[in-house]
Amino acid sequence: MTQEQALEKLNALEKKKAAYAHAMGLISYDAVTGAPLGGAACRGETLAVLSQEEYRLKAGPETQELLAFLAGCGQALPPQAARRVEILRQELDETRCIPPEEYAAYQKLLNDAEAVWHEAKGKSDFDSFAPYLKKIIDTQIRFAAYSAADKDPYEYYLDRYEPGMDAKALDAFFSALRERLVPLLQRVQAAKQVDASFLTGDFPLEKQRALAQELMDVLRIDRAHCAIGETEHPFTTDFSKFDVRITTHYYRQNLFPALFSVVHEGGHALYELNTADEYAYTCLGTGVSMGVHESQSRFYENLIGRSRGFIAFLTPRLQALFPQLSDVSQQALYRAVNRCEASLIRIEADELTYCLHVMVRYELEKKLFARQMAVEELPQAWNALYREYLGVVPSCDREGVFQDSHWAGGSFGYFPSYALGSAYGAQMMHCMKKSVDVDACAAAGDLAPVNRWLCENIWRHGKRYRPDELLARVFGGPFDPAYYLAYLEKKYTEIYEL
Amino acid sequence: MTQEQALEKLNALEKKKAAYAHAMGLISYDAVTGAPLGGAACRGETLAVLSQEEYRLKAGPETQELLAFLAGCGQALPPQAARRVEILRQELDETRCIPPEEYAAYQKLLNDAEAVWHEAKGKSDFDSFAPYLKKIIDTQIRFAAYSAADKDPYEYYLDRYEPGMDAKALDAFFSALRERLVPLLQRVQAAKQVDASFLTGDFPLEKQRALAQELMDVLRIDRAHCAIGETEHPFTTDFSKFDVRITTHYYRQNLFPALFSVVHEGGHALYELNTADEYAYTCLGTGVSMGVHESQSRFYENLIGRSRGFIAFLTPRLQALFPQLSDVSQQALYRAVNRCEASLIRIEADELTYCLHVMVRYELEKKLFARQMAVEELPQAWNALYREYLGVVPSCDREGVFQDSHWAGGSFGYFPSYALGSAYGAQMMHCMKKSVDVDACAAAGDLAPVNRWLCENIWRHGKRYRPDELLARVFGGPFDPAYYLAYLEKKYTEIYEL
Repeated sequence: MTQEQALEKLNALEKKKAAYAHAMGLISYDAVTGAPLGGAACRGETLAVLSQEEYRLKAGPETQELLAFLAGCGQALPPQAARRVEILRQELDETRCIPPEEYAAYQKLLNDAEAVWHEAKGKSDFDSFAPYLKKIIDTQIRFAAYSAADKDPYEYYLDRYEPGMDAKALDAFFSALRERLVPLLQRVQAAKQVDASFLTGDFPLEKQRALAQELMDVLRIDRAHCAIGETEHPFTTDFSKFDVRITTHYYRQNLFPALFSVVHEGGHALYELNTADEYAYTCLGTGVSMGVHESQSRFYENLIGRSRGFIAFLTPRLQALFPQLSDVSQQALYRAVNRCEASLIRIEADELTYCLHVMVRYELEKKLFARQMAVEELPQAWNALYREYLGVVPSCDREGVFQDSHWAGGSFGYFPSYALGSAYGAQMMHCMKKSVDVDACAAAGDLAPVNRWLCENIWRHGKRYRPDELLARVFGGPFDPAYYLAYLEKKYTEIYEL
Repeated sequence: MTQEQALEKLNALEKKKAAYAHAMGLISYDAVTGAPLGGAACRGETLAVLSQEEYRLKAGPETQELLAFLAGCGQALPPQAARRVEILRQELDETRCIPPEEYAAYQKLLNDAEAVWHEAKGKSDFDSFAPYLKKIIDTQIRFAAYSAADKDPYEYYLDRYEPGMDAKALDAFFSALRERLVPLLQRVQAAKQVDASFLTGDFPLEKQRALAQELMDVLRIDRAHCAIGETEHPFTTDFSKFDVRITTHYYRQNLFPALFSVVHEGGHALYELNTADEYAYTCLGTGVSMGVHESQSRFYENLIGRSRGFIAFLTPRLQALFPQLSDVSQQALYRAVNRCEASLIRIEADELTYCLHVMVRYELEKKLFARQMAVEELPQAWNALYREYLGVVPSCDREGVFQDSHWAGGSFGYFPSYALGSAYGAQMMHCMKKSVDVDACAAAGDLAPVNRWLCENIWRHGKRYRPDELLARVFGGPFDPAYYLAYLEKKYTEIYEL
């Protein structure tokens, strides 16, 4: 086999992998959009069959042989191909080190745990969920050891979601946040509160849907390759850069959850839609890490969407659609959509308190994975941290430890991405402002220059570089949360006239 | 390999086939529901990969060996297994006899032809479409010869959609229809016309959606396993008996297209939902033929949905949702939804003229496949038959020969199913009425006894018997279109007071 032949084989392999990812991704998307409730068993049968083939493509003997050959080509391999081989070999190693029967048992455990979590959440009954959570954590620690016996298991998972980021760096990051955000929050809470009464009312769904379409156009999302659906919880998924889906949830009584979720998911979508064409159907053609992905979504949601300029642009449009807002000034709307309120639910949190919610989860995950805390102690520890960071305490576990589905789904080490992404975004904004008048763009509703900058610096690269490499290129230096903290302090000092 | 082991292998094979059919079916469903327009290329890539594997499951060496072994078991095989082997071997033979490169070229031809058809239809430009249609017909005739060299090619395709039905029987069927329906239509056209002015107006979509949900409940469709979507053209599809989808299209100005399409597709859905559990994930677990499938959908749409009793049941419900109907009597509504009007478009046709539309297509398909007519002569021949049977002539080909997508998709021999299904349904009604007071059920909106009869006699059997065998069991004798003709004559004589 020549190197050229091997690269052709690699392309064919990745195209096949993309096809299975598309089919399986669509089945999951359909599960929360069009499928009848009783379709779960049929879906399970189909996913079981397709994932067998997916496993073979990831870790079968042909793939092993091909990747070993390509790895052996060394410096002769073009750098992009070398990066693909690096990513695919890592995936192969991670897949192969878990005995198939243990992997299958874990999938079943997650399936069962999700159902138990749903029911237990409804009843706020942590005792019935605890044994499942314990088993998930035990399995994750065991799997981490299979793959990297010498590595701390929590570090292992942190690295999977944000390659290059470790607990030491995250500890420093969260410490900086805690030191400056907790006192800021206390000052905000002591100040005169913002009127947000007009944010709730009657907002007909058809008009909200029309607004969502308009917002997607304002974001310059290529509608030929991105559709919007409706689900319980908003999210973004992609079947290739040519077929991206975002979803939202409309509330009749409140316009703003859907509005900001469309802008948030729109940021994710823009990233996927704008990876380089040449990376399509390869492992390079997608966002590089969860943190960088969240940096894009939270950039659009907050740094653009909740900016003074963009709210000024939106106000007359909102007033035309919803006459009850006609007496609300730009300034009043700007303050209302940025109102800070220490609350119990992460996904409803404002920009200032958001990272404190994330921090709670990070602290708890570390302790669980270090065996410094038993699963049974989790609800109490959760409530104690909410009291400490946010000054509020859940009245029941449904409003507390049960609120996110991540842990029931085995996603430990994922939460920090949300906070990292927020901070990455602020530093990107700092860099972008050297060449783009972002405030003027937002106020004019002309986001083309913003998109251009992000495409040039981030989107088009896909997974070509490791996230820390990519960020170093973008920032021209190390990641520094000071930009994020300065941004929040300036914004909330102004809004609350501190 | 023992017979028992072979049957286990057969189950595993059919489960795999069902999984691929699910994935590919969902990708096609998504294409007309949630997908962005530019997703076609990505979809094509994925379908190409999955269909390779599907081909292997249908006709690969392992399947060949397994089916040959099972066929060799002869009488020792349980009858249901023997039927599965019979169906799968036929599929294998049909798949295998076409050289893969010719099959791929034909798939490409169909892809291209569909795009050309769309564009040519818009411009009513038959000349640009004719070369594609000619190639499709040539290929179909060639493929039929590969599979059954001694059989008339059109008979070959008729038999695929309605096994056991041949052109001789269909000729007799359509002759009987023509002889009695054309004069009946002429008498109806000469009579005093029915007022249907109130059928159009303003029918808010949210209320239509609510009505669709209510209708599905009235039909006793298991909502846990059947969801409704919205598409340009209504249809039904299933990914297994546990996950069935129907679609409709709501028109703001006219309530009734969506109403009757939900009842029509509901009939298809009930059939798929109620095949026996033991046939799930096997080739027996689906409707037996297109004709029998249409018999169920047109039974619900017309024999139930457009019956005097069901309209009486519906009237107060419609009046509650749509106040503009509050002065319309049951009798006026019954007559209006059954108004007969010779029109140009099949899918908008009333019950009396519907089969005449089908007959036009049947006559033309026969001539094309017998090479008695060139493709170029098609528009003129189409218009001549419309004048003869329906007394109307299209002003352009868009309203004529272009209206259905079937031919551009290579579906020759399919149209007769629509007429056969209508006639099967009338004979089923005759049999059902021996034990069920159908009129009383319809008037009470209690369709449970109707569903029970159809489930017992038709649905649960799936593909266990050939369609002609199944119908002979249901009818207790041969299929006879006299029931259908008598039904139409009675209904329209009454409505038009002939």
